[in-house]
Amino acid sequence: MHPQRWGDPAAATDLPESARGLVELAFGLQDRPAVTDARPPESAIAEALLDGLRSIVGDAHVLLDDETRILRTRGKSTPDLLRARAGDLDDAPDAVVRPDGHDEVAAVLAWAAEHRVAVVPFGGGTCVTGGLAARRDGFAGLVSLDLVRMKRLLALDEVSMTATLEPGLRGPEAEALLGEHGLTLGHYPQSFEHASIGGFAATRSSGQSSAGYGRFDAMVVGLTAATPTGSLDLGSSPANAAGPDLRQLLLGSEGAFGVITSVTVRVRRAPTETAYDGWRWPSFDAGSDAMRTLAQSGLLPTVVRLSDETETAINLADPSSIGGTDDPGCLMVTGYEGTADQVAARRAAVTAVLAGLGGTPLGTGPGDAWVQGRFHAPYLRDSLLDHGVLVETLETATFWSHRSRLYADVKAALASSLGEGSLVLCHVSHVYETGCSLYFTVAARQGDDPVAQWRVAKAAASDAMIAAGATITHHHAVGTDHKPWFAREIGEVGVRVLRAVKAELDPAGILNPGVLVP
Amino acid sequence: MHPQRWGDPAAATDLPESARGLVELAFGLQDRPAVTDARPPESAIAEALLDGLRSIVGDAHVLLDDETRILRTRGKSTPDLLRARAGDLDDAPDAVVRPDGHDEVAAVLAWAAEHRVAVVPFGGGTCVTGGLAARRDGFAGLVSLDLVRMKRLLALDEVSMTATLEPGLRGPEAEALLGEHGLTLGHYPQSFEHASIGGFAATRSSGQSSAGYGRFDAMVVGLTAATPTGSLDLGSSPANAAGPDLRQLLLGSEGAFGVITSVTVRVRRAPTETAYDGWRWPSFDAGSDAMRTLAQSGLLPTVVRLSDETETAINLADPSSIGGTDDPGCLMVTGYEGTADQVAARRAAVTAVLAGLGGTPLGTGPGDAWVQGRFHAPYLRDSLLDHGVLVETLETATFWSHRSRLYADVKAALASSLGEGSLVLCHVSHVYETGCSLYFTVAARQGDDPVAQWRVAKAAASDAMIAAGATITHHHAVGTDHKPWFAREIGEVGVRVLRAVKAELDPAGILNPGVLVP
Repeated sequence: MHPQRWGDPAAATDLPESARGLVELAFGLQDRPAVTDARPPESAIAEALLDGLRSIVGDAHVLLDDETRILRTRGKSTPDLLRARAGDLDDAPDAVVRPDGHDEVAAVLAWAAEHRVAVVPFGGGTCVTGGLAARRDGFAGLVSLDLVRMKRLLALDEVSMTATLEPGLRGPEAEALLGEHGLTLGHYPQSFEHASIGGFAATRSSGQSSAGYGRFDAMVVGLTAATPTGSLDLGSSPANAAGPDLRQLLLGSEGAFGVITSVTVRVRRAPTETAYDGWRWPSFDAGSDAMRTLAQSGLLPTVVRLSDETETAINLADPSSIGGTDDPGCLMVTGYEGTADQVAARRAAVTAVLAGLGGTPLGTGPGDAWVQGRFHAPYLRDSLLDHGVLVETLETATFWSHRSRLYADVKAALASSLGEGSLVLCHVSHVYETGCSLYFTVAARQGDDPVAQWRVAKAAASDAMIAAGATITHHHAVGTDHKPWFAREIGEVGVRVLRAVKAELDPAGILNPGVLVP
Repeated sequence: MHPQRWGDPAAATDLPESARGLVELAFGLQDRPAVTDARPPESAIAEALLDGLRSIVGDAHVLLDDETRILRTRGKSTPDLLRARAGDLDDAPDAVVRPDGHDEVAAVLAWAAEHRVAVVPFGGGTCVTGGLAARRDGFAGLVSLDLVRMKRLLALDEVSMTATLEPGLRGPEAEALLGEHGLTLGHYPQSFEHASIGGFAATRSSGQSSAGYGRFDAMVVGLTAATPTGSLDLGSSPANAAGPDLRQLLLGSEGAFGVITSVTVRVRRAPTETAYDGWRWPSFDAGSDAMRTLAQSGLLPTVVRLSDETETAINLADPSSIGGTDDPGCLMVTGYEGTADQVAARRAAVTAVLAGLGGTPLGTGPGDAWVQGRFHAPYLRDSLLDHGVLVETLETATFWSHRSRLYADVKAALASSLGEGSLVLCHVSHVYETGCSLYFTVAARQGDDPVAQWRVAKAAASDAMIAAGATITHHHAVGTDHKPWFAREIGEVGVRVLRAVKAELDPAGILNPGVLVP
């Protein structure tokens, strides 16, 4: 992906004509074209150093050309895009290295440690928290360790229902390999089309079907990782009491402890039936309470999402279509996957509960529309950035009893920071027995310095999360952007534990310097 | 509990008359009375040191008397009992300290670090892997940090369905506190009547209802811990992507990283209905395959257990009662808890699956009998030890496709080590989508040195587990007994990670020295 935009250029669209008027009314229509001829700085790594790399991966897999370096520059947060659109490619790696397999990754890390070269593991490049923008000061250079050649299904165990996948597989590639055997992982984050298996593991990703399939970290039963000082091979059993769960120390380690070179994940039979329903709730609280009831009754659909009043109104071209009134209330989407019998049984049970709690069924239209557009929002963001609208998302999670306060506080922090005319939308998309996530989308008219404009709003929202006792991130990871708040979340002793693990595994500090570890 | 026997003396029984004949036939009836007048060594800690402790917890809570020290000596493995029965109380702590609350625990640890006193956290004392037998060489003494005063329900959130519990609560005490609010934890390991909340967390306990309620580590959403160098307070949300899950680093840390001073756990409404069914399967493989089908269909009962042919025959006074033949096959017990509707629905669905797979329903008798005796086996062990029978258990877990090999290899290792006339029983009692546990019970005629006799058999079984790629422990933890195999399971890099965390949190190494960390 180009650092200025999301995804596949062929899939990009300009702002739909139907939306132009609304956007103009709300934010004005500015013209903010991206700089088109930006080039990265010269590669700063000494040519002589690279021979060592070439001897590990082969000449063809050490790349220095501008185009390759540009495509590995930063991630996909709005600040990342804004900087690239302004022509700033200063974070481009000096070189891109493409190892094939665990042993080559391990050798690259040993080489990097020996020569003090910073290494940024690269999967799909979809990070939105600055996890691909490692520090380079004090290092002899910075290389992007691209996992693009590691795309194998290494093992499949259809009795245990586990698959061992290499980290470079993108979401659709992994699903295609499993699909040949009638299996699925069921992991569909919004970044699904581009993000990688390694990234899912290293950032504790959570997909839109998390209610049915669980978070990615809950799917992992084993993993291997290469570190500069040795390799880890974990996963003797689904669960055990053999000390702390070291798998859960590597999951979420964001390339700062090692490079995950394979994960063994639980898989399931691919569904033969899917169905999506829409529900209207009179308020966000009422819909949220209904989600809680489902989660605490062990009656979750595969997908369950709830938009607040603002998001519901914005997302529906004709809000009155779902409520028959000018007040669309809050839209919930419930989705079911499985065999026909499973879908029918779960759908009937959930429908009975939701109807009993005061939900109004809206038929399959809203759910089907959501499925159609489920991976498209990042393209819309590009169109809005083109027209001078600042758009970004952030997310958190908390326990049910704190949800209402967290929602109010974060929303107020964003609205007050971004000022009059800004929009703050929110939805719940991941639920647990004890709590849920909150995902916010904001839109505001871009000022002269939109990166600074967003930084202030993001800090205010992050402060509100930590003050409410919530997490700084439910599924976007820490990267560089969340570090100050992450440190407050885990406390001084937690930070020391991470530093100790980092120092043990990566004493030269070459792995994603400045990422994750406060 | 006295170190020579399990549990409450009032609940102990001699070998039932009906079993004496069988036991005599199988193993002979030796008379192996325990030494009754054993005393521990003199307390070796300098009296002057203790004033510091007294100033933290009060004079009344620093105890040096023999009786108190005896009752904190070692745990409940068969070797632990055999040593105590032989009059060996050498592992008795020099003193017992009873702090009340997180701050006092933290102060005790700081005191211990300053004076190089080893500290063994003590909850229920039910450990079966040597986790209470810390090294004392190089230390100025060894104190048992008894959590008996920390038995509060610190917080209850009936919206989020979480409870914050202190570590000293025994299983029944925690259930009683929750029961006042109509809630339950649903955690019933065999040690339930005596084991503590802190112990469940520190050892990643798994209860007999794990299919319905999950393992203890899966119930924990937050925890606090005191370490010699600071405190941890973790748990901002049910799940998140804020770095590695540090909760999962403290869970299973067996008092070697810190003392868990509270856990926040997910609770559920107490069931209003329970039902237990028995099923006969023609073989262990057939029953195990049926369990796998249930787990992979998302159709698990609350309890599901399967005994192999030998365990089925031994456990039934009249084996033919369940099969109508001389071949009792393999007994499965399925248990259901919840509302009447939930129990009825799940029971009907499971019954249809099991009947379809060739299981023979046996009515409620076998399940009800299992419920009656579910916590009694350790008392029976005492009776058998009295009569010269060596009885012990061990357990492991693996993925479904390796279950058959693991079962055969561990059974062969035990049988071959213990020799002719020994009995090896096995059951599956914890199942996951991707695999299951195996729990072995052995009985053999005690030789002259039963501790050595068991050590050889245990090593052979442990070697077989690791050779099969399985875990050294599904729910008994590492302690001191499993350390060599644990090191092989997590590898050299995994061991280095644990050592680094230990060195960071406990640089003086006073926390449970020699336990967990290889």
